[in-house]
Amino acid sequence: MKIKCKRSNLMKSLNIVSKAVSTKTTMPILECILIDVYADCIKLVANDLELGIETTLEGDVLEIGKIAVEAKEFNEYIKRLPDSEILLESTPDTKLRIKCERSDLELLACKPGDEFTDLPVVEKSKSITVSQFTLKQVINQTIFSISDNENNKLMTGELFEVKDGKLTVVSLDGHRISMRNIELSGNADNVKVVVPGKTLNDISRILSGGIDDMVNIYFTDRNILFEFDKTMVVSRLLEGEYFKIIQMLSIDHKISVKVNNKDFLSTLDRASIFIRESDKKPIVISIKDDNNMYFKVNSQVGNMNETLDVDKKGDDIIIGFNPRFLMDVLKVVDDEEICMYMRDAKSPCIIKDEDESYVYVILPVNINASAY
Amino acid sequence: MKIKCKRSNLMKSLNIVSKAVSTKTTMPILECILIDVYADCIKLVANDLELGIETTLEGDVLEIGKIAVEAKEFNEYIKRLPDSEILLESTPDTKLRIKCERSDLELLACKPGDEFTDLPVVEKSKSITVSQFTLKQVINQTIFSISDNENNKLMTGELFEVKDGKLTVVSLDGHRISMRNIELSGNADNVKVVVPGKTLNDISRILSGGIDDMVNIYFTDRNILFEFDKTMVVSRLLEGEYFKIIQMLSIDHKISVKVNNKDFLSTLDRASIFIRESDKKPIVISIKDDNNMYFKVNSQVGNMNETLDVDKKGDDIIIGFNPRFLMDVLKVVDDEEICMYMRDAKSPCIIKDEDESYVYVILPVNINASAY
Repeated sequence: MKIKCKRSNLMKSLNIVSKAVSTKTTMPILECILIDVYADCIKLVANDLELGIETTLEGDVLEIGKIAVEAKEFNEYIKRLPDSEILLESTPDTKLRIKCERSDLELLACKPGDEFTDLPVVEKSKSITVSQFTLKQVINQTIFSISDNENNKLMTGELFEVKDGKLTVVSLDGHRISMRNIELSGNADNVKVVVPGKTLNDISRILSGGIDDMVNIYFTDRNILFEFDKTMVVSRLLEGEYFKIIQMLSIDHKISVKVNNKDFLSTLDRASIFIRESDKKPIVISIKDDNNMYFKVNSQVGNMNETLDVDKKGDDIIIGFNPRFLMDVLKVVDDEEICMYMRDAKSPCIIKDEDESYVYVILPVNINASAY
Repeated sequence: MKIKCKRSNLMKSLNIVSKAVSTKTTMPILECILIDVYADCIKLVANDLELGIETTLEGDVLEIGKIAVEAKEFNEYIKRLPDSEILLESTPDTKLRIKCERSDLELLACKPGDEFTDLPVVEKSKSITVSQFTLKQVINQTIFSISDNENNKLMTGELFEVKDGKLTVVSLDGHRISMRNIELSGNADNVKVVVPGKTLNDISRILSGGIDDMVNIYFTDRNILFEFDKTMVVSRLLEGEYFKIIQMLSIDHKISVKVNNKDFLSTLDRASIFIRESDKKPIVISIKDDNNMYFKVNSQVGNMNETLDVDKKGDDIIIGFNPRFLMDVLKVVDDEEICMYMRDAKSPCIIKDEDESYVYVILPVNINASAY
């Protein structure tokens, strides 16, 4: 293979495929990026067997062929080259020659291109289309409540369910649930799959996030394929039946509270200083008929009291929370004011907007209410 | 004690004194910041027994007194408060009450102010004055070549020597020497002390770095005192006789090379990718009569060759270096072109400007020149 391209283009493509390069593996080929040169196009491919990414590199084909290059030093070297034209050429003994201005490198850490594992072929029968902006936002607004504990594998992923022209994305970790609902335009087949959290994190970092840039998503029983710009991301799915959450989403709430998102977040942020995760101490919130929300933290380090104005309907309540769970939600909701719905100190609290484009469920922490 | 101040002022003062708060200690009082309120001024003080910092906080004195506050949670809480007025008040049972807008904190992690260790009193007999800009630059241009190995304690500090109206600052780690010379204005007593590297790192982070803001530096046998803005930094000195370096600074050079600093740095930066610290492999530089500098790295990962235009006088040379030692120097020298002086492949290389305001000595790495 022999190609010519701009350093900036090569860097852009490398940044995309590098997300699927394995860093901890006993199979050296998974640490490689495949440069695959056809008659009319140059593909960069990485594949860690869970996640595979293929993208097209803009450049001139001088000679077809392919070579697999160890990603680490290759990436670092290209990053440090001047913004100029680069010539890449494989040698007969499977090395990669890289020339740029007055720098000339022979990269020894290469393997024959045909040792590289092809990406799985995904049948394009069931699909939906959303904007990059929406997909990025949906991931960002739900990914924080997946579990990082591998004990329950399904909790490390997110449910993607398409039903009656609506996409529902759900994550949960046993303490809380995050849900986003998106109306789809155009035809959409009903599907229900669980996508690994790592895949979604990687995708969200690759997406440019434009409102007018679209992503086609294809589903099979084993894989999900995201197609956008000149890039294809294929991921394995997690196997198993996802949790039933319908019951947990509908409480017969007696109390609703409207509160300024930013002020609420600042208060929780201060409170969290005095709550160590290991202590399992809550922040205690009492909402009274004077339309004030009273915050109280009593810890070994300090006792904090704060007040916020709120707009409350229904009974008074004293309830305890892990402040981090509330903060995670407030950070990703764009609305200036959020609405909390509660029943009592033991029932889950729900944060949602009017048309339920987002629904968050947070379990409270048990407190001895008489002490407050 | 009871004071009123702006959050921004308190934050600024806390950032300064926090550099002298101990984080790893069995003496809890060293993790505290002393708030010391006189009739007419508010002092914040921290002291880890090696380094002590005292600064004046702008604010209103409502009641004199003092209290020592554990720095960690105090800092974090103040950082998260709105930019507004803060009221600080000690309680009779040694707690600190902090009120700001609708937030009210009782900080329990406090100690009586008189448990705090006073800063050492430094006699102000021997002194020099330099600008903050100069002191910050001098530290930045020498600190990288102190040793992080405690085996030879003196190498973890820097020599500050005042002689005949000139300040010389030196650091060395056995592989290289960094030296800065500064002409002092006004009277200056001759002194020779070794200042701990940690102190200099901390000072350089506190200094605003203005050309017109001055620092008074006072020396005694045991301590050094830096006085600037409304801040006083006292540090212990390292004991012992510093290394004699005069001999190492003067080689009878046969070769001088002038090279563009930025280009040289880029080449070394690329080369360093292929040189692992553990390999002890050098970058080999040959300078020939065609006014080219040839770079060569041969490693297990790749073989790199590059060329740079230089302006050379004297013999040809082939010499090996640890690229990091050269890079450390090139990064901190502001000159567009630097001059290297060499004798042969085994003698130290010297990088200096014409009036020797900076002098760097770097030992080469042994190579088998016939192989290149």
